[in-house]
Amino acid sequence: MADKTATKTSRRGLLQAGLAGVGAVAAAASARAQDYITAAMKTPGRAFSPYGMPAPYESAVKRLVGPPGVNPGTGSSRTPLEMLEGIITPSGLHYERHHNGVPDIDPATHRLVIHGLVKNPLEFSMDNLMRYPRISAMHFMECGGNSGANSSPTPPPLTAGGIHGLLSCSEWTGVQLGPLLDEAGVLPEGKWILAESGDAAGLSRSVPLAAVHEQGILALYQNGERLRPEQGYPVRLLMPGWEGNLNIKWLHRLKVVPGPMNTKDETSKYTLLQPDGKARQFNFVLPVKSVITRPSGNMTMSGAGYYEVSGVAWSGHGVITKVDVSLDGGATWVAAQMPGPALPRCLTKFRLAWDWDGKPATIMSRATDEVGNVQPTHAVWMAQYAPGQPYQNNGIQCWAIGADNSVKNTYA
Amino acid sequence: MADKTATKTSRRGLLQAGLAGVGAVAAAASARAQDYITAAMKTPGRAFSPYGMPAPYESAVKRLVGPPGVNPGTGSSRTPLEMLEGIITPSGLHYERHHNGVPDIDPATHRLVIHGLVKNPLEFSMDNLMRYPRISAMHFMECGGNSGANSSPTPPPLTAGGIHGLLSCSEWTGVQLGPLLDEAGVLPEGKWILAESGDAAGLSRSVPLAAVHEQGILALYQNGERLRPEQGYPVRLLMPGWEGNLNIKWLHRLKVVPGPMNTKDETSKYTLLQPDGKARQFNFVLPVKSVITRPSGNMTMSGAGYYEVSGVAWSGHGVITKVDVSLDGGATWVAAQMPGPALPRCLTKFRLAWDWDGKPATIMSRATDEVGNVQPTHAVWMAQYAPGQPYQNNGIQCWAIGADNSVKNTYA
Repeated sequence: MADKTATKTSRRGLLQAGLAGVGAVAAAASARAQDYITAAMKTPGRAFSPYGMPAPYESAVKRLVGPPGVNPGTGSSRTPLEMLEGIITPSGLHYERHHNGVPDIDPATHRLVIHGLVKNPLEFSMDNLMRYPRISAMHFMECGGNSGANSSPTPPPLTAGGIHGLLSCSEWTGVQLGPLLDEAGVLPEGKWILAESGDAAGLSRSVPLAAVHEQGILALYQNGERLRPEQGYPVRLLMPGWEGNLNIKWLHRLKVVPGPMNTKDETSKYTLLQPDGKARQFNFVLPVKSVITRPSGNMTMSGAGYYEVSGVAWSGHGVITKVDVSLDGGATWVAAQMPGPALPRCLTKFRLAWDWDGKPATIMSRATDEVGNVQPTHAVWMAQYAPGQPYQNNGIQCWAIGADNSVKNTYA
Repeated sequence: MADKTATKTSRRGLLQAGLAGVGAVAAAASARAQDYITAAMKTPGRAFSPYGMPAPYESAVKRLVGPPGVNPGTGSSRTPLEMLEGIITPSGLHYERHHNGVPDIDPATHRLVIHGLVKNPLEFSMDNLMRYPRISAMHFMECGGNSGANSSPTPPPLTAGGIHGLLSCSEWTGVQLGPLLDEAGVLPEGKWILAESGDAAGLSRSVPLAAVHEQGILALYQNGERLRPEQGYPVRLLMPGWEGNLNIKWLHRLKVVPGPMNTKDETSKYTLLQPDGKARQFNFVLPVKSVITRPSGNMTMSGAGYYEVSGVAWSGHGVITKVDVSLDGGATWVAAQMPGPALPRCLTKFRLAWDWDGKPATIMSRATDEVGNVQPTHAVWMAQYAPGQPYQNNGIQCWAIGADNSVKNTYA
């Protein structure tokens, strides 16, 4: 069985044997260069532009914005994962999660304050912050409520982005918080930090001070340019690998406090109810996870033949060390290729060649991270919590492929 | 002298000692939370958007588009390197070099042909290409004519982007060309490939077949989404580390030929005239290079005190292994920090802490790559060629910092 799987997924074997028929269509051998002169070659193109945009032919590649609710700025929009490639999310397609819309903040007047249990309360203009040493790193950002749709009793008939698209990945650049906290001089009784956003939601979360000191970054740049407004312009708290909600946008103040503050945003939400009725609170670090994005939900297969199965994996605990893929409903597994780079708390791309026989198949991926965490099955994940808990669902995503070429979300 | 330099550039030392005064301004110790409630916190923000854009406050961050010439689509626009951070260039700010504008190409009708000295001429629709296995990697792209301004007799008073901004870096995803050439079946006499663009310039270059077979990629995605029109949508030839000009955009055909074709685009341009009057032709791989982007040309210093000196380094030959920085006109050098990732044929970010004493100083960076190439001085580079040769100028970039806080391009 293992041998059979290996043969079915050998990239080299497929390329040498069956792949010739996949895509190419032999052109007429008599074709001459002038036969290839197209309309675009007879018309001067348009001029230069100061800031480029995607081709108009790609207008369907956009964030999945839900229907407007009572409060139009409250909710989320999702990254269309199944339409993207590689690990970098274009900033224009980074997912959004807002509690009261995207504020308009002039960086010339915005201030960030570090106060509370400190010797020297500090106030920073953005120009001040720009003078500090910077650090750049690629990290995923994921909402704690990502994949919550799969916590419903029956599998929602959604796309990869529709289920898992509260996930994006960027190169972030900013200022490390440790030295700034040292500059403020944290008093011995200061053990946690309250981080508050400068939007109309005043979103606030409690974060252990030691973690902010060690890992926290004041993010100023995203994918080379200044943060986008939807990502917290002019400055956001970045806690790599931690629930998106803790990465406070439009960061306005950091107050050093003695303990967790139990704010509205961490009691009414972002807690996990267990079967015994008790809630887990302060679930900071995101668990190991992966999703096959191609083929994925609501795509249509093109019949039997060669496919590249590909997707992304990530963990809040560090580097992804392995992604196993099953093409037979979990009976057998094969290690996917991960050509790298392998970066901590960053999306990792995986790929596997597959010669589909056209018969019904269930495909799934299972990620392992550097500290040995392995993605659980849907059933195992669900059994940990009371029914319907929407946070930190990292159960294995299965896609059911039908003989009718359909691809559908399934739980097993 | 070396010790003194080390002390002046110790990041930890600066952070612990003199940095406190750099940016922070002590807020009133009596400040209370309600003092920090701003206008943005009293107004609901705007709703979600399907494709995000930079903040309006960042409208100055744009490509440097030259004045329109006789042919408005002929020329280049440059990446504003000094305004960016990290290694990824936002796709909207990727430099442009067009010979007859940006064509409007419908991917549904575009075809790529592999023909010439092959057993089976092949024609690919974009849908065909999409079915092949893919590869993702981060690579810089640089025009062979980048930094040509520094080949003039006197240093042009330009910014980092104005001199070196025909340089950008993206995560590219596409299809490897080796298997496609195998599928076409190259005949024994086929040794080179003519690659031609599908725009009105019909740009064409000759490339050795062995290199295309080994390294060539048909790039379909850039930074996660489909190629931007300015970068060759729907498909471009990607030759990582090779002169930008060879990375043919809007790729239309690849013709296998017995030898170089000496097309208009590789004889009138992209050759290097030597002092003896002979030209070097087919200068494919880009040399090792670096530039300090902050501080850089036409910026204004803020007086004596702490600065982070930072920039980017790259080489067409592989990984950057070292960047040395001199803060005293080349008398002494110190190794900059390169926190990584170290990726082949990709921008590498370097950083160095500097406590500027406010006196005139000339700063410069010197990159070394994995095969041991070291960036030459401006004078050494110039001596290799006839005066004014604009291609592949990788001479060390020097910035002269004045006691008046000015930063200016200089040759020594």
